[in-house]
Amino acid sequence: MSNTEYKFEGWAGFGPDSVEGKLKFIEYEPKQFAEDDIDMKILYCGICASDISTLSEGWGELKDMWPQVVGHEIVGEVVRVGSNPKNGIKKGDIVGIGAQCDSCLQCHYCNKDKENYCSKGMTGTYNGKFSRTSEGSKSYGGYANYWRGPSHFAIPIPKELDPAEAAPLLCGGGTVYSPLVEHGAGKEAKNVGIIGLGGLGHFGVTLATALGAEVTVISHSARKQKDAEELGAKHFLITGDDEAKAFKGHERSLDLIICTSNAPDMNIPAYLSLLRPGGNFIFVGIPEGGQVPTIPLFAMVMGNVHIGGSLIASPQTLKDMLQLVADKKVKSWIQKWSLDKVNEAVPSMIAGNARYRYVLVNEKNGGKL
Amino acid sequence: MSNTEYKFEGWAGFGPDSVEGKLKFIEYEPKQFAEDDIDMKILYCGICASDISTLSEGWGELKDMWPQVVGHEIVGEVVRVGSNPKNGIKKGDIVGIGAQCDSCLQCHYCNKDKENYCSKGMTGTYNGKFSRTSEGSKSYGGYANYWRGPSHFAIPIPKELDPAEAAPLLCGGGTVYSPLVEHGAGKEAKNVGIIGLGGLGHFGVTLATALGAEVTVISHSARKQKDAEELGAKHFLITGDDEAKAFKGHERSLDLIICTSNAPDMNIPAYLSLLRPGGNFIFVGIPEGGQVPTIPLFAMVMGNVHIGGSLIASPQTLKDMLQLVADKKVKSWIQKWSLDKVNEAVPSMIAGNARYRYVLVNEKNGGKL
Repeated sequence: MSNTEYKFEGWAGFGPDSVEGKLKFIEYEPKQFAEDDIDMKILYCGICASDISTLSEGWGELKDMWPQVVGHEIVGEVVRVGSNPKNGIKKGDIVGIGAQCDSCLQCHYCNKDKENYCSKGMTGTYNGKFSRTSEGSKSYGGYANYWRGPSHFAIPIPKELDPAEAAPLLCGGGTVYSPLVEHGAGKEAKNVGIIGLGGLGHFGVTLATALGAEVTVISHSARKQKDAEELGAKHFLITGDDEAKAFKGHERSLDLIICTSNAPDMNIPAYLSLLRPGGNFIFVGIPEGGQVPTIPLFAMVMGNVHIGGSLIASPQTLKDMLQLVADKKVKSWIQKWSLDKVNEAVPSMIAGNARYRYVLVNEKNGGKL
Repeated sequence: MSNTEYKFEGWAGFGPDSVEGKLKFIEYEPKQFAEDDIDMKILYCGICASDISTLSEGWGELKDMWPQVVGHEIVGEVVRVGSNPKNGIKKGDIVGIGAQCDSCLQCHYCNKDKENYCSKGMTGTYNGKFSRTSEGSKSYGGYANYWRGPSHFAIPIPKELDPAEAAPLLCGGGTVYSPLVEHGAGKEAKNVGIIGLGGLGHFGVTLATALGAEVTVISHSARKQKDAEELGAKHFLITGDDEAKAFKGHERSLDLIICTSNAPDMNIPAYLSLLRPGGNFIFVGIPEGGQVPTIPLFAMVMGNVHIGGSLIASPQTLKDMLQLVADKKVKSWIQKWSLDKVNEAVPSMIAGNARYRYVLVNEKNGGKL
């Protein structure tokens, strides 16, 4: 189908029950190859919570977007380049693709290294449609053998990095790194709080620490306290069921809070009490149909604090992050699964077993378990 | 009562109906004079919406805090200094007092020119109690003949300024100037939106313009469009009853929005659509028992925008603002009322007649109508 010596094949969902271990291996038609595209032989792909929220239709019905091959934390080897490759990419390079694989590349934001906020919207690495080239073609993700898409969004993986560990940095890592840098973690924001120690939260701890911040993990129970400390956190706040009580004595101890949790009943004013004047509380994800509290006007005005949001990371931000990870020898905590066992890995991820990110390994292509 | 040759006398409210023209002229006991205090002969005092929300008990019952002498936009002549005056203040100086008249002066924030976010809380210029000196004494505001309090919070009025025009800058002006500067108006925030053209909003336009920003006024109707333009606004957006419709075509046109309106049914996601990625929407006031919408998580994450709050201004910020006003010859739009007519002025202010700030003139003390 793809006019190449290799086929585009991957594990596809055909309905919301696909997350229950019902992904099927199929061949599919990728976008038409454009001169700034690459083809990549996939070695590793992280399992992101977004994969599950998409497949389960937790973020909305997929309708004509079925079947879905998800996965947007992809690392692999470039096997084809066109006449106009970006990022200096050439055949044989090891590169990564995160949650975004295209944008208009012409607007103010695309020109300012903010492609993730492109004025015309982004093309997601899966569940998206291309428009700049091969208009209308569906995008397919990384639970697959090959990937095709714009080289502009392919991030060279520094040679010092383990490519399997690099994979989950491309979405999970970048998603927390971007607001950490935006709000000065380690610089004007010396004290950083990370709410929730999951896939994103564990990167929040390692990356904020690498940036020079002192990290406080805020978690529901003490269950992950030892992990938090090993990851680099200096403080651990246990909320139990009463955040206001738990935070007594810790008022104004943080400059920045990254919220990787999506509990709909969070006591937002209590969290804001942890912030110093000028501080920011940043959501990095959208819960599945989750309710959120009302705007805590009194706490915001009296405390000079801000609530904001941040969406994934731009290619330049991902490059900066990977360089920091290489320079500071930051470790990702991952467990590897053979891609062939994806129908076991996804339910295990949903069950909350990852510590802290699952990475699918394409052994056929040379990925190492 | 005050051991001075002058008496502390002013117009006091004795209950919520005082805003209906029932303020009574009384003598009261000020705080004990401390060595860093001043006594000021009051010349002018602006009428702030806070005066009304306090007297009407819209922000909560006053209980043992009756009677209330409100007013926190005070300009007058220093008639007494102690042995330890701050800000180089001496007898005969013309100085101003804003909404805050004391704080601990020892904490991290007081030492960083953020006394308005003092860790121990602030003493309001009225409806407050002193604690640093004369512990437990009530604070009394500027609808009066004399004012006594800490010289640290007395701002020298530049000689080039009309002291009557300077008065409302001390709360109304500072309240919008502080977040304008915090979020880089005229620098990284070139395009600034001001919601609501009232007392605060009119300062939002003049001060943001003086800082070099291009200002858009966002208002319910076209009624004040001409005023907005005369004040310096370059654009005027009329919301009518459907903000989302009104803002079509203006998406991502602003870097910063200062909300001086307190409409409880504001379509917050529509306002956020006006902001560029990285932008801020700042509340500067707290409505009387007003409801606010839920946190617009989707709009915040997808748009990288922030909602925050800001409370009045610190002494240093007020000094900076007054210097800018002097340098750029910024005019306050005020109407003057004799202090003796305060019981007419307050109801007229409530009726929405101010264009855009009422200033009470103490003629007996030499204030000029």
